[in-house]
Amino acid sequence: MDVHSVDWEKMEWTPVRPGIQRKAFSGDGATLALHLLQPGHETRPHSHPHEQIVYIMSGLVDFHIGDSVVRLGPGGVAKIPGDVIHYAEVIGDQPVLNLDIFTPARPEYA
Amino acid sequence: MDVHSVDWEKMEWTPVRPGIQRKAFSGDGATLALHLLQPGHETRPHSHPHEQIVYIMSGLVDFHIGDSVVRLGPGGVAKIPGDVIHYAEVIGDQPVLNLDIFTPARPEYA
Repeated sequence: MDVHSVDWEKMEWTPVRPGIQRKAFSGDGATLALHLLQPGHETRPHSHPHEQIVYIMSGLVDFHIGDSVVRLGPGGVAKIPGDVIHYAEVIGDQPVLNLDIFTPARPEYA
Repeated sequence: MDVHSVDWEKMEWTPVRPGIQRKAFSGDGATLALHLLQPGHETRPHSHPHEQIVYIMSGLVDFHIGDSVVRLGPGGVAKIPGDVIHYAEVIGDQPVLNLDIFTPARPEYA
């Protein structure tokens, strides 16, 4: 069978907006989006109907989710329910590597 | 709001079978399962109705998916469609850290 596969090590980052870059992969049920967030990037609260699970791979971030704030470092995982306003705020001077898992899939990402 | 969140750095590994350990997190739409695979673990072909996206975080693995074999290193991502027989085979002498994303969710995992 033809396996849908990519190598993120060889894939270029896609610029999203200043200080935010993305690599993404879509299955039928979920989209994985690896985001690189630079310290000081403009925060932009937003929502979408998709559930988003965030998994922090490196760096330190405050995730503002509804009226809550969750500080996540490497290994931190959190659920953002659909339609809840949220944004990420980098803490400290290190970039944040954040894997987002969206359901349903967002094929427009990849 | 009450945010569903865990810290995988502080969570103990759950033994699955010899050579395989797991940490998991479920949302409503997806389950994330971080697997640590030791070289030489017994391979066990299996299938499930869930789609599974695999993301290799470290190590080298051959994923046998249906009649195909895909070699994945760090940054490698692949889709295993639902109901397709598959198994992972560690290549070399380093453990493999593999994040699996299942849709629909598998709440029995976490």
